[in-house]
Amino acid sequence: MSKIEIIPIQGIPEIREGDDIARIIFEYATSSGIGVKQNDIFVVKQKIVSKAEGRLVRISKVKPSAEALNIARENAKDPRLVEIILREARRIVRAERGVIITETKHGFVCANSGVDRSNVPRGFACLLPVDPDESARKIRESLESLSSRKVAVIISDTFGRPWRKGQVDVAIGCSGIEPILSYRGIKDRYGYTLRVTEPAIADEIASAAELASGKLSFVPVVVVRGLKFKRSEAGAKSIVMEREKDLFK
Amino acid sequence: MSKIEIIPIQGIPEIREGDDIARIIFEYATSSGIGVKQNDIFVVKQKIVSKAEGRLVRISKVKPSAEALNIARENAKDPRLVEIILREARRIVRAERGVIITETKHGFVCANSGVDRSNVPRGFACLLPVDPDESARKIRESLESLSSRKVAVIISDTFGRPWRKGQVDVAIGCSGIEPILSYRGIKDRYGYTLRVTEPAIADEIASAAELASGKLSFVPVVVVRGLKFKRSEAGAKSIVMEREKDLFK
Repeated sequence: MSKIEIIPIQGIPEIREGDDIARIIFEYATSSGIGVKQNDIFVVKQKIVSKAEGRLVRISKVKPSAEALNIARENAKDPRLVEIILREARRIVRAERGVIITETKHGFVCANSGVDRSNVPRGFACLLPVDPDESARKIRESLESLSSRKVAVIISDTFGRPWRKGQVDVAIGCSGIEPILSYRGIKDRYGYTLRVTEPAIADEIASAAELASGKLSFVPVVVVRGLKFKRSEAGAKSIVMEREKDLFK
Repeated sequence: MSKIEIIPIQGIPEIREGDDIARIIFEYATSSGIGVKQNDIFVVKQKIVSKAEGRLVRISKVKPSAEALNIARENAKDPRLVEIILREARRIVRAERGVIITETKHGFVCANSGVDRSNVPRGFACLLPVDPDESARKIRESLESLSSRKVAVIISDTFGRPWRKGQVDVAIGCSGIEPILSYRGIKDRYGYTLRVTEPAIADEIASAAELASGKLSFVPVVVVRGLKFKRSEAGAKSIVMEREKDLFK
């Protein structure tokens, strides 16, 4: 295997509702000389996808429910923000010590249902896209049409995790790439059958891209170039563990 | 920020107890033309570090305890392997449906205390290094001495995670790099203070490297080049969440 490159696309402007993200990516990839090559993987930060899709909520307009008021009081949070978090959630996984971890309607387990106030206009909260796999598919198809190249698109977000400090970027949506490889049943060099090796490459690609995106400069699109992958429309929803298989409900 | 490269070092032979991993990395990096550059990050698979350190156990020589026999029966496992897993563990986090998740003596929460039979000679189980940060430090110092360049070393292993299918590579040891960045208290472009953004870059680098290492070809060392990072000897132990802060004990 040869080397993989992680290339940030610089200069992408502030994204607003209705913006055509695929066209903007294509323009900045082209003008910067990065271009679009066959099998490039475009990793796009959830924040700009949500903004383009109008997933901003004005916090002052939200009326908190009794449940939101309760949780907000116990966790020293803004009850209107808690209300927004609850509306995006299927269930609360933990709400303790100021941390609210929910399962979103997509099935993602993350802090605050993915609702976030950073890098959005003051007074607004940003929600996850309604269907991030579908968002990824649209961007991929449009990028392919603009570039005449086959590409993949991953929509990434920053998630914490149990037992380890800090956060890592993971894939919340993808299109054009099989998100999990399977080596099940394949033998290693000693003839031992690998049983449980299924690298979640979509998550690893999202993490790799984060390294080149930075938090302060906020480069929202990164190209991962040189990685061989399998095309698929399984989507990031196929990464979500079925509840009944999960040891950590 | 400019691009980051993920470069596999090809051709590294089977590692045996007592092998000098730093010298082998240096030789193959040099002979392949990759070389060693200032601020290169060498991501080394745990398996070869463990092998060099003699962390292989002959399974047939292990006598299972009563507890190991019980857990093995309930989870359809080899009781001798369970005994090895228990000896490497501080506690069992979950043991259900054939999956044993423990907290290792290092504080890592992972399947089977990191004990693994793949890519090791048949009849043996491979344990994690006793002190992976110290293993990383030795490799880094030796690589720096051989190359006259400042580098960082990350020792990676493959961990599952709750709520998401598949596995990702994480850092179980590191030297020469601060494993977690902190943007706490820094303001975004809207003046909003980022409160909880602390990317676990050592884990993201391990994941990025996994993309170039493959499972079948088994490339055990990958260079990550072009990433700016902060030097530190905090080690991967600083990624481990303190038990009392963890919502998912």
